[in-house]
Order: sequence, then structure tokens, then C-alpha cells
Amino acid sequence: MSEQRIQIVQNILSANDAIAEQNRQLLQKARLFSINLMASPGAGKTSLIEQTVKKLAQDYRILVIDGDIATTFDADRAIAAGAAAIQINTGGDCHLDAVMLNKALIQADLSQYDLLIVENVGNLVCPASFELGTARNVLVASVPEGHDKPHKYPSMYRGVHYVLLNKIDLLPYVDFDIDFFRKGLEALNPAVELVLVSCRSGEGLDNWLQWLRNKIGEFRAS
Amino acid sequence: MSEQRIQIVQNILSANDAIAEQNRQLLQKARLFSINLMASPGAGKTSLIEQTVKKLAQDYRILVIDGDIATTFDADRAIAAGAAAIQINTGGDCHLDAVMLNKALIQADLSQYDLLIVENVGNLVCPASFELGTARNVLVASVPEGHDKPHKYPSMYRGVHYVLLNKIDLLPYVDFDIDFFRKGLEALNPAVELVLVSCRSGEGLDNWLQWLRNKIGEFRAS
Repeated sequence: MSEQRIQIVQNILSANDAIAEQNRQLLQKARLFSINLMASPGAGKTSLIEQTVKKLAQDYRILVIDGDIATTFDADRAIAAGAAAIQINTGGDCHLDAVMLNKALIQADLSQYDLLIVENVGNLVCPASFELGTARNVLVASVPEGHDKPHKYPSMYRGVHYVLLNKIDLLPYVDFDIDFFRKGLEALNPAVELVLVSCRSGEGLDNWLQWLRNKIGEFRAS
Repeated sequence: MSEQRIQIVQNILSANDAIAEQNRQLLQKARLFSINLMASPGAGKTSLIEQTVKKLAQDYRILVIDGDIATTFDADRAIAAGAAAIQINTGGDCHLDAVMLNKALIQADLSQYDLLIVENVGNLVCPASFELGTARNVLVASVPEGHDKPHKYPSMYRGVHYVLLNKIDLLPYVDFDIDFFRKGLEALNPAVELVLVSCRSGEGLDNWLQWLRNKIGEFRAS
């Protein structure tokens, strides 16, 4: 029974990876830089998207694809900030997969955009196992979650290229040891980039916005 | 292909429910009141367990079974607070299931305890789909996660008996509309009990502790 179950999971992952590769080619062909934005529920993915779109929308055309179990709250917020948005309701699934993203990608004119932000379902476990085909995996961590999270969710922290530690405006009010967090992260993922930000106050976001500008430029020129 | 996949999921759930029923009978036989404690990563499950054990350990013998993808951090904290603890490392799985709990239950002398707290993996999606056989499902929500979470994670909010909204000490520093949260919760789950607490300051915990005392007493007498 357990052997059969393992076999099935492997098949699903292989199918996912094949479609992720198709997504990668679609995005490459359109020279569209893309990120898979992951986080716990409430870490601040949507707030980060709002801030990012507000700051970049005058220079870049941005498409947001929002994955949620239910509601269109997040897509509504992305549109209000100035992006185009497509909502995927997973109907219970705990993560986006490459097939869901593919269905969204083929209904958009990708050549119209400079930046694609895919907002995954709020979950620090399952999204890490499903490659989408985006250029970079980005994680929003947040101060109130606690400094032990890299140790406790190693698959997620190991598989990302860029980490934003959000809600640093709450540091005075909670017990959070930045060094402990940073060491836990670097032990798993020495090459990762880490920035400290507050989507509420705007602090630290310039580093993130410059990184996006650089990547969009590199991707266009590639 | 998709039909086959749905069939398999049903089989796994049925097997889980059968073992959950065995767990329920084991716990009933030992007259051991038990809760399945669920939350997002970092909402405060372990802090709640620490506070609960410190306050109740002089009157009750408490067993904590901790589910984590990796580390024994949470079990260590439960033991330091005064409970007995068993750690389950899921090795990547995003939730506990009834089989994992069963393996832990059969290695303990359940008649030695008055209260069992099962701390699930930090995840607001998947644990809701796997009944463990505990007497009550309890959710720790937290203020920094945002007031929209009942709308966005309906399966979790619909399936619990008791919700603690934690980190109310942070209400002055974040945008959180308690009425919006409460209405979202009540629309899904009219019978649920909701208390507002701060595991940091201790505020509101008396309601929770009294509920546990009542349930432990009722369960013993049943």
C-alpha cells in the first residue's frame, strides 16, 4: 500500500516537472521575468505585491497570477494597485502546480508584460515540492512567525533564491533573534539573498525593487 | 487520470478515518481528553502549550505529542514547561495523520495522563483533511496573519470546535478588524467558540484554561 502510494506521488511530480518546463519555455519566449512568491498565511505576500506594483507600475507592465483556495481578495488588491491579475482558485488544494499555472499562462498575452508575479497558496510546506517553471522562487518570511522557521521548514527555505523578512516594524514587540534566523537560513541555503523589510512602513523595499529591476533587465537582454 | 487520482485520495482518507476511530477508542478507554491543535507556522501553538502546561501541570498530568517536519524544538519546550512529550518528525509530510498519531499513542501509557495535546504541523490547509481521532479540533489564529483568513482557508475554519485568536498584544501595531474576523468565522462555523488571547502577556488565557478543566472533568465522568 505504501509502495503504491510513493509510486503515484513520483508520477505526479514528473508530470508536474514536464509542464513546469513548458511554462519556463513560454516565459522565456516572451522574455518575461517571473517569480513564484511563497509564504505562510499572512506573512505579507499580497502586501508585498501591492507595494511592488505601486512602485514599479510606471516603468513596467506587471501581471499577477494569484493562487488561493477561495476568494478573489488577493487579485482584487493587485488590480487596485495597478497590475493585471488572474485568479486561480485551487478549490482546496494546498499549493499551485505547474498545470494550474499553465492554464493561466495560455489565456494571457505574455508579450504584453515585463514582470510576472505568481502568488502561491499560503503554506510553508507543500508549494516547495511543486516547481512552477518561474525564473526565481521567492519567500516572504515574517517577524511574528518566529526565528526558528528555517529549522522547522527546511524544504521551503532550502529551495528559494530570495528571502524577504517582512514586518520588521514589529521587532520591538516580539522576541525575534535575527542572527538565529539568518544562521538557520544560511546553513540550509548559503547562496540565498536576504533582505529585511516592512511592507507597512516601506523600509528596506528599495533593495527588493532594485533586484527586480536588475532581473527584468537581464531577462529581457538574455 | 484525474478520476484515478480522486479515487486514490478517497482510499487514503478512508484508511485514515478507520485508524482515527481506533485512536478515538484508545483515548476513550483511557478517559483521556485530547485536542488536535492546528495553526499556521508561527501563530503560537507551542507558546500556547507552554502557557497551558505551566498553568495546569500542578492539577493534571499532560502528554504533548508534537508533529514537525524536522527538529525537536517544540517537544523540548513542552518538556521544559512540565509535560511529557513525544516528537513525531513527519520527514516532509505537511500534516499529521491518524497512523502517525496511532504509533505515538501505542507507545505511551495513556492511563497515566489527564490531557493529551497533539500539536499538528504548522499549516492552515492540509491538517484539516486528516481526522486524528482526538475529542476536539482547536485552532490558534494570530493577529499578524490578518483578519481575512477564515475567508481564505474555509476548510480549516469550518472544521474546528474552538479558536484562540492569539497575539492580541500586537493589535495596536497592525491593521486587524476583529469584527471582520469574527463574522468570517461565524459564517462558516456558527457553533465555534472564540477567545482572544495573548500567550505573551497571558491575557485571555483563563477562558481557555477553564474550558480545558471543564472538558477534562466531563471526559473523566463520561
